[in-house]
Amino acid sequence: MTLIFKNVNLLESCGYSGTVNVVIKDKTIEYIGAQMPEYNADRVIEGNGNLLMPAFYNTHCHSAMTLFRGYGDDLPLQRWLNEKIFPAEDLLNEERVYTGSMLAIAEMIKNGVVSFSDMYFFLDETAKAVEQTGVKANLSRSIVSFDSNADFSKDLRVLESIDVYKNWNGKADGRIKIDMSLHAEYSNVPKCFDYVGALTKELETGFQIHVSETKAEHEECIARHGLTPTAFLAKHGILDNAVTAAHCVWVSDEDIKLMAKYPISIAHNPVSNLKLGSGIMPYKKMRDAGINVTLGTDGAASNNRLSVLRELQFATLIHKGAERDPSVTLAADMIKCATRNGAIAQGRMDCGEIKVGSRADVVLVDMSSFDNIPSYSFESTVCYSMTESDILMTLCDGNILYENGTYTTIDEQLLKHEAKRVISHYFD
Amino acid sequence: MTLIFKNVNLLESCGYSGTVNVVIKDKTIEYIGAQMPEYNADRVIEGNGNLLMPAFYNTHCHSAMTLFRGYGDDLPLQRWLNEKIFPAEDLLNEERVYTGSMLAIAEMIKNGVVSFSDMYFFLDETAKAVEQTGVKANLSRSIVSFDSNADFSKDLRVLESIDVYKNWNGKADGRIKIDMSLHAEYSNVPKCFDYVGALTKELETGFQIHVSETKAEHEECIARHGLTPTAFLAKHGILDNAVTAAHCVWVSDEDIKLMAKYPISIAHNPVSNLKLGSGIMPYKKMRDAGINVTLGTDGAASNNRLSVLRELQFATLIHKGAERDPSVTLAADMIKCATRNGAIAQGRMDCGEIKVGSRADVVLVDMSSFDNIPSYSFESTVCYSMTESDILMTLCDGNILYENGTYTTIDEQLLKHEAKRVISHYFD
Repeated sequence: MTLIFKNVNLLESCGYSGTVNVVIKDKTIEYIGAQMPEYNADRVIEGNGNLLMPAFYNTHCHSAMTLFRGYGDDLPLQRWLNEKIFPAEDLLNEERVYTGSMLAIAEMIKNGVVSFSDMYFFLDETAKAVEQTGVKANLSRSIVSFDSNADFSKDLRVLESIDVYKNWNGKADGRIKIDMSLHAEYSNVPKCFDYVGALTKELETGFQIHVSETKAEHEECIARHGLTPTAFLAKHGILDNAVTAAHCVWVSDEDIKLMAKYPISIAHNPVSNLKLGSGIMPYKKMRDAGINVTLGTDGAASNNRLSVLRELQFATLIHKGAERDPSVTLAADMIKCATRNGAIAQGRMDCGEIKVGSRADVVLVDMSSFDNIPSYSFESTVCYSMTESDILMTLCDGNILYENGTYTTIDEQLLKHEAKRVISHYFD
Repeated sequence: MTLIFKNVNLLESCGYSGTVNVVIKDKTIEYIGAQMPEYNADRVIEGNGNLLMPAFYNTHCHSAMTLFRGYGDDLPLQRWLNEKIFPAEDLLNEERVYTGSMLAIAEMIKNGVVSFSDMYFFLDETAKAVEQTGVKANLSRSIVSFDSNADFSKDLRVLESIDVYKNWNGKADGRIKIDMSLHAEYSNVPKCFDYVGALTKELETGFQIHVSETKAEHEECIARHGLTPTAFLAKHGILDNAVTAAHCVWVSDEDIKLMAKYPISIAHNPVSNLKLGSGIMPYKKMRDAGINVTLGTDGAASNNRLSVLRELQFATLIHKGAERDPSVTLAADMIKCATRNGAIAQGRMDCGEIKVGSRADVVLVDMSSFDNIPSYSFESTVCYSMTESDILMTLCDGNILYENGTYTTIDEQLLKHEAKRVISHYFD
């Protein structure tokens, strides 16, 4: 399958100026340039002044929680969790997690997101949804453990993580990867960190965890262990793995120095952190320390959307405001957080940028929308003015998943029908 | 002209539950209820589970600056103004202001905004655009003055304000109102405040001004006059008028107490304040003091969009994050800031809410979009998940201005063509 984008604009950060022709052969970007090489193209798409840019990578999500979008908004965190979310999660089953995951993926595809990192349970269901819809995901079974005397080699959740790894890692043509995950420092005993950390190393896979999301959690860890959550993870060997640390709102300057020594990626979730009243992550210090900052949406229950473009726009703006300096965030840097850096966090080194040899994970953006007139810089347009509805096409591994409002891998009406049924069962 | 929305959902804050029928006769909402009274309807629109809500009011804008969207982003404020915006504005003329205003209005209509307050110049051109497109606006000629010895009765900008008032106030069937405006405390001599304040009182019209947008401006006013900008305005009698004070990021607790004694409205511009690094307005204190807080976009040059929905979503989220308390902002309150409170600020007392007798300024929101599934509360959906592209229809004074992506009062292709020409002339 050969697809050509003809006379399309590319983001300046891709290193090209003016319009170019982009040839996609099967999964890969084969050619970028002013020439139109001889290809037997299956399809030629006219650029029409529109913008081709890398698709978005969402490095922190709980996809099935889309079922709980708007369920208990505006409550303080502990009441929201105890009165709303935990009882709701208690009623989850395979079918409900599948439907929630499908809703999440449908929303992400139209928002230009082609890959997500997920921490949840009933992983087989989310994996099935990923396989069917053509997106990519790093899925993880998020473990909680409260028994220091447990034999973790027999722990059901650990065994489930290993099972899922064996069944799904590398499947769907490499689109599915299975990471290990502990929910957080405060929700696991230290021994579990040692055990799962060693397991992660053995499997040579990624590791997902919540870190210093709230002030209380950060301070309680210090009281408990005499260490910050980041120092605690380093001590237990977790940081030797390819860790994606979600939130990191309350990390100290010392934590940032420590992180910079490890292959860590930070999943910055600005909207969730604002919505739950957690605070504003020290982005500038992390960037200055050279840490790989990426963007995540968190679950729809605490956002309430799954749009990395929205996270990108929030992140760019709130750090300028919080530091009272408009030069703190630069559009090109922030776009990289939303694309290439996310692919790196997921261990997908040939993804997240538009260059010859890269996987063709791209979106085509409508530059004729009133949102985007005028446009003096494509970076500025992406960062400050474009909306999700300006996304004309979403491609993952060279496959068109969405075009002009229509899905190619999702039966939209059927999914909405199923969603209605699941949601009504769930809350009556 | 009689229009019926049949079996449509209304925001709970409107006081109705379940679906209702809404009858709009000419400009006004004539009936809301479960019955379907006998009307010779010109058109019946099926609700289909969608949401009818008040349209958005934008209380601070410089509409023609849409021409400068993305022109010099990420620069510090003074460099942005001196190197980019001031030289660009120096080249403005009637045609350019008209085209910039039309671009702004087209963007606002699709974003569900039916009325805006504007501070700029070449007001005749913006007024023409408002008249043609069917929206509402409170337009003001933003005056700067640096000569204490001037005779303001002969000042050209004051005379222009009076002329525009005479020519346009109340025109276009009351859709156009003309306010008086001084740009800011720091850009005018005290004598000009006395003169224009008295003029505003005489004309019984509104007054628009920037107040305490930046820390430097706030502190320099104290150094200059021994008064904060708010206290300075009170001293010069300005606050006796119906003032819309834009920004108010740096107002003191004393300023807030003072404001609460006057018929003032605050135009909160969260995105612009973040983007320019100005800071975060003390929303909670203002709300607790009972001040009429409204939402504005500011100009597209410092935003870069003209979406009150986006401002509403940013405002709701950033104050939770900044105060580290998710209960600081409530969805229903914030929606009121974006709708009814804005209408009050503009002196349009019969606008901004859905009730019998109100002007029919409404938007119809697609509840079948993946953004909005599930929806446990309409307020939550509006505040946290809906996007501008979920807006199916925008009505102003009962007229449909936009429906399913099509404008009824704007020739979209012609406007884009004109915009291209104006922008290319301007920047080559």
